[in-house]
Amino acid sequence: MASSLGKEKSGITVSKNSDFSEWYTQVVLKAKLADYAPVKGLIVLRPDGYSIWESLRSTFDKKFAKNGIRNGFLPILIPESLLGKEEKHFAGFNPEVFWVTHSGTNEIGDRLALRPTSETLAYTMYSKWIQSWRDLPLKINFWNTALRAEIKATKPFLRTSEFLWQEGHTVHSTQEEAEKEVMKILDIYKKTVEDELAIPVVTGKKSEKEKFVGAVYTTTMESIMPDGKALQMGTSHFLGQNFSKPFEVKFADKDNVEHFAWQTSWGVSWRLIGAMIMVHGDDKGLVLPPKVAPMQVVIVPIYKNDEGKEIVLPKVDEIREKLESQDIRVHVDDREGMSPGYKFNDWELKGVPLRIEIGPKDIENKSVVIAKRHNLEKSSLGFSEIDKISEILDEIQKEMLKKAKEQASKNTINISDYSEFKSKIDEGGFLCTSWCGKLECEEKIKEETGAEIRVIPWDSENITQKCVYCKEQSKSVPIFARGY
Amino acid sequence: MASSLGKEKSGITVSKNSDFSEWYTQVVLKAKLADYAPVKGLIVLRPDGYSIWESLRSTFDKKFAKNGIRNGFLPILIPESLLGKEEKHFAGFNPEVFWVTHSGTNEIGDRLALRPTSETLAYTMYSKWIQSWRDLPLKINFWNTALRAEIKATKPFLRTSEFLWQEGHTVHSTQEEAEKEVMKILDIYKKTVEDELAIPVVTGKKSEKEKFVGAVYTTTMESIMPDGKALQMGTSHFLGQNFSKPFEVKFADKDNVEHFAWQTSWGVSWRLIGAMIMVHGDDKGLVLPPKVAPMQVVIVPIYKNDEGKEIVLPKVDEIREKLESQDIRVHVDDREGMSPGYKFNDWELKGVPLRIEIGPKDIENKSVVIAKRHNLEKSSLGFSEIDKISEILDEIQKEMLKKAKEQASKNTINISDYSEFKSKIDEGGFLCTSWCGKLECEEKIKEETGAEIRVIPWDSENITQKCVYCKEQSKSVPIFARGY
Repeated sequence: MASSLGKEKSGITVSKNSDFSEWYTQVVLKAKLADYAPVKGLIVLRPDGYSIWESLRSTFDKKFAKNGIRNGFLPILIPESLLGKEEKHFAGFNPEVFWVTHSGTNEIGDRLALRPTSETLAYTMYSKWIQSWRDLPLKINFWNTALRAEIKATKPFLRTSEFLWQEGHTVHSTQEEAEKEVMKILDIYKKTVEDELAIPVVTGKKSEKEKFVGAVYTTTMESIMPDGKALQMGTSHFLGQNFSKPFEVKFADKDNVEHFAWQTSWGVSWRLIGAMIMVHGDDKGLVLPPKVAPMQVVIVPIYKNDEGKEIVLPKVDEIREKLESQDIRVHVDDREGMSPGYKFNDWELKGVPLRIEIGPKDIENKSVVIAKRHNLEKSSLGFSEIDKISEILDEIQKEMLKKAKEQASKNTINISDYSEFKSKIDEGGFLCTSWCGKLECEEKIKEETGAEIRVIPWDSENITQKCVYCKEQSKSVPIFARGY
Repeated sequence: MASSLGKEKSGITVSKNSDFSEWYTQVVLKAKLADYAPVKGLIVLRPDGYSIWESLRSTFDKKFAKNGIRNGFLPILIPESLLGKEEKHFAGFNPEVFWVTHSGTNEIGDRLALRPTSETLAYTMYSKWIQSWRDLPLKINFWNTALRAEIKATKPFLRTSEFLWQEGHTVHSTQEEAEKEVMKILDIYKKTVEDELAIPVVTGKKSEKEKFVGAVYTTTMESIMPDGKALQMGTSHFLGQNFSKPFEVKFADKDNVEHFAWQTSWGVSWRLIGAMIMVHGDDKGLVLPPKVAPMQVVIVPIYKNDEGKEIVLPKVDEIREKLESQDIRVHVDDREGMSPGYKFNDWELKGVPLRIEIGPKDIENKSVVIAKRHNLEKSSLGFSEIDKISEILDEIQKEMLKKAKEQASKNTINISDYSEFKSKIDEGGFLCTSWCGKLECEEKIKEETGAEIRVIPWDSENITQKCVYCKEQSKSVPIFARGY
């Protein structure tokens, strides 16, 4: 086996527009974010991929902490008997559950499920921990993985049988407080996705058909991807007393009378990374928003001989130190035996937001060349302006969100007529149209077009138009789309 | 169900000296670090317990990053065929493996193991990722859980069928570099445990019998617990080419000739939290080293009426703000309807390093009362000295390590005679004694006394005494002990 460096590093071979699915997979693998594990349906995260998750986790942790939420740990194994305690919930997950039947050579009596989600386990514990109003609210988040056996083809970050996520579970003494919490979390989700990943989302409710099994209602944030398919970016559920009753999550109030508690659960997963890749990537590969980029700036020194090297490298070090002192994540690509052009392609493939090029001529001119990844623009920056790089990264972050908003807006259309609906759905996108609220119409539309209700936006209720399907009085204007 | 607040909050009912095992379990449960999960052998971490793990993780992450190690993610499922690829390794773990045999109602062909450790999976990936010398060293760490079915009774943090840990896996082009890495990691482990958890450790090698299955050799850090039993605190393995050969982890060197790589793996688990509880706790409950304490200072305002409250609370807020501005983790216990004495006991049970008491008289005297958890000493601190609290916490941290060193030193004795060995072993402790290096003697000693070689300290090799068992020339002076 000879060194296959050339092959390994080769760029993306299809365009985003011509074969979106193949383009996506190539970006994930060639930018070294993730790779396929030996078991079908599972992936491994390489450091550049995991680092994005760590960055999101750290942002969420800060926001959760401000909201009085702390982290805990739950084991991965849940007894079958426990998982079945809330019937609808169990029926929803049952077909996807991985079952542990043996430890060593011993058969296990009550089979153990690998958690598809932890409501049943968390609330078994909560019912032990909560006795009085003094113990409420109880707000714990868990960073772990969930396992749901996928039958369809795997897509890294989008459809895998094990996925990284966080699941939050809160308990409250009143319905009002619990419902407020549902909304607070959805707001944290929306702001974080827009601020950190530069992806716009639409928030609202799921329909009864699409809600989380076991919830009273589910709130959601949805985004439209460049290929016209919708992606669920995170959900926050109001569970009411649906779990507190079977799991006996009860508390004695100040008057010493016992009540069932009110609960919420909510989660986002590494799907967010999948969305980031799809929304921002281009034909050269990954494009990373500066806030979550493992490496924000790469410096490529350019020289042809030792003389050039001696002129260039000290300045490179100086700039690196200056940027590091401003907490900018910077890397110097001083690999020998590789052309600058090769290096440029390599870092563009990996999506590094800003590249700095410095050669002997730049030293003479007291300036560097900067190349922005998101729009591929090159310009010159004087040595005295190096301090502006932090601002430039902020601008890139803003421009990426702006561009993503424009893209999403182009992919969102209002429809009033069902024949128009059917002709437009093949092009993809968010189709906003009136609906009477009946399951029957929702199911018929899904059956005939493949589109489902992704979200009923908050401000879309009580619109006085006719249902796109049955022409009866509509109750809301949901967003329909085909989804991931 | 009436409020069972009184019962829930009651303190530790046995003394550490009289019933160590029951004392330990009570501290874990009553200080609300962890609780038993519904599945035998599994535990749940409550926020105060998980927070200590987060603190350790954050410290390790910083040190790993400085050493060029980044984090990644591996799925939990490993095919049986893959796990069996390194035979000795497989044989070592096989009896403890949890097996997944079904997903939904479908039977899985090649059974899937829940990772007992990830060498086989990591190196399958590494063999794809590594082609040339340019890809080395490859150093990735994984924060996850490992699953090993425990038959013996569960002890939270010490013996559970799923445990939180980190496993690091590095690949190098030379043996020398890999062996250096093994030692670097062991050094990071030792310093972190001593600096953060205030627990002294002894480092050295494991014997051939006790090494990690599949390693060339295992380095370890061991501590002696107050009950005289030894606890393995972390291990760092030199794997040589034992895995790189079956897993084909190969690289083309600069001369384009292909070589098998040299590897290391290493890990610490939440056992470290168990050690911290055992080493520092007392009859009143948990005692937390300030560096890892979720809450470093608790302020208890004391007053009998509204007048007192109005005098005390503004000062309490002022002190809290001052401490927060110095990044001290502080909490004000302003719960109504509970006596100061009740609160003191509560926070002592939970191990908060420093308590501040302020009542109207203290306001008059321009001072507060401070109570140190680790030695239960109370003293007075003037308002003008509040800035010293950061230093006081540092002192507490140092005093705890000093005390733990003295305790460990008392529990470590040199032995040259086997009859003395046998009489001392029932008292517990580290028994340092000469050994010829033969497996036979090691096994006989274990059989006859229950003591095993915990560690062969670095400076103990080539000591010219006689083997405690066979009286032949000794090769080293290992530490024998009964272990957890």
